Amino acid sequence: MPRYALKVEYHGAPFAGWQRQKELPSVQGAIEDALARLEPGPHTIAAAGRTDAGVHGLGQVAHCDLAKDWEPFRLSEALNWHLKPQPVAIVAAARVADDWHARFSATERQYLFRLLMRRAPATHDAGLVWQIGHRLDVGAMQAAADLLVGRHDFTTFRSSICQAASPVKTLDELRVEEVESFSGPEIRFHVRARSFLHNQVRSFVGTLERVGAGAWSPADVQAALQARDRAACGPVCPPQGLYLARVGYPEPVFDHAGLGSR
Amino acid sequence: MPRYALKVEYHGAPFAGWQRQKELPSVQGAIEDALARLEPGPHTIAAAGRTDAGVHGLGQVAHCDLAKDWEPFRLSEALNWHLKPQPVAIVAAARVADDWHARFSATERQYLFRLLMRRAPATHDAGLVWQIGHRLDVGAMQAAADLLVGRHDFTTFRSSICQAASPVKTLDELRVEEVESFSGPEIRFHVRARSFLHNQVRSFVGTLERVGAGAWSPADVQAALQARDRAACGPVCPPQGLYLARVGYPEPVFDHAGLGSR
Repeated sequence: MPRYALKVEYHGAPFAGWQRQKELPSVQGAIEDALARLEPGPHTIAAAGRTDAGVHGLGQVAHCDLAKDWEPFRLSEALNWHLKPQPVAIVAAARVADDWHARFSATERQYLFRLLMRRAPATHDAGLVWQIGHRLDVGAMQAAADLLVGRHDFTTFRSSICQAASPVKTLDELRVEEVESFSGPEIRFHVRARSFLHNQVRSFVGTLERVGAGAWSPADVQAALQARDRAACGPVCPPQGLYLARVGYPEPVFDHAGLGSR
Repeated sequence: MPRYALKVEYHGAPFAGWQRQKELPSVQGAIEDALARLEPGPHTIAAAGRTDAGVHGLGQVAHCDLAKDWEPFRLSEALNWHLKPQPVAIVAAARVADDWHARFSATERQYLFRLLMRRAPATHDAGLVWQIGHRLDVGAMQAAADLLVGRHDFTTFRSSICQAASPVKTLDELRVEEVESFSGPEIRFHVRARSFLHNQVRSFVGTLERVGAGAWSPADVQAALQARDRAACGPVCPPQGLYLARVGYPEPVFDHAGLGSR
């Protein structure tokens, strides 16, 4: 059966997360149901990152096996047709080798976190940002973030239900940027690693927000990291500002030429 | 009665437009109802631009008269509390002179139009962009846009129900920009004038899209303008990409220091 890679964008709000669950709407379930409209199922797709409830996809990658030889762009169009009106879109599709795996072939994941600094409730960006009503010190946050980059035991920044075999991971990038978005002053966290522990990005952002607000110093973050103790973590921030932005593979998977991909 | 200026952001989708209507939800009605929770009504507020159904506000400006002497930031907080969960937010408030008028004191209006070029349905930006499935030629669109700038009889680009006394207006800016947004390649139209005719921006954008697609030449747009005939206009584009971005006054109205404004 030919294998296809799918680049998937989704709004996390209406879903209980990526992973298929009985009785609850999931992104995986929505796509598997759309696949079943193209070819009799059951279909089981694998994804690079199993995002939590409320977390968004910008460049999630999944793969599926189909009986028919689909032209990739036509496959994406057919899936998008059946996914409507759910906020899930196949923004690119590609034929891949039979042993290519969306999760196990991935060599890098990039997350984006959007934090909006304003008092008035967001309207266009409601559900798409974490909103706080005070200003943050970006320089202090970046100084603390720099202490987290590299190979560390991240037990402090790991959910107690995390199933990873080891808490040791290498964080390749944690960049803190201030931008002016349509909704106002926004902090964007750009986080990149081969793989992540459960709730690692939200644990980082919640802790760094405390640094930006002046409640923690960068040295406090250093101490928290070295404690290797979940109790030393700052508050875990809510999911709605988090986006799985990009998944990297040894070879580029998607053709960026057409309007079907990006 | 002290007069207050309000800078208003809203998502246009759930509303029949700015203007209060019997039986239909409107942005004006939502704000007037919130005002009535603060002080007994009826309240009637005036706005710089009466946006159509589906059109968004980013920097709409309105004014209201209240009996009490409100601290402007507290007024915005109280209104935002009562506006919840509707997607309308008071992003700034200011005390203004008794003869200051949101509409008649305004000397400039800026509109933004967002056009997303991609096939896959938008998820995060659903309802916030006009989506088309083909690439557009930005250079050709800008060349045509340049022909519209200046003082002209804009009868061609004016809705048949427009109530303005004269079709002659001075267009100060019509800038066509391509950006890469989270959702993909996007064309942004920045349009600025003292005042606009009804449907003028959507008539411009719909016509310029035809130029970008190669169906019209810039010379065709010139001929359409000179025809002074509504029938010569290109297709009027849908409202969901349009934002009232900013309203200008002879003196700055809002204090940009705090997180209550922007």
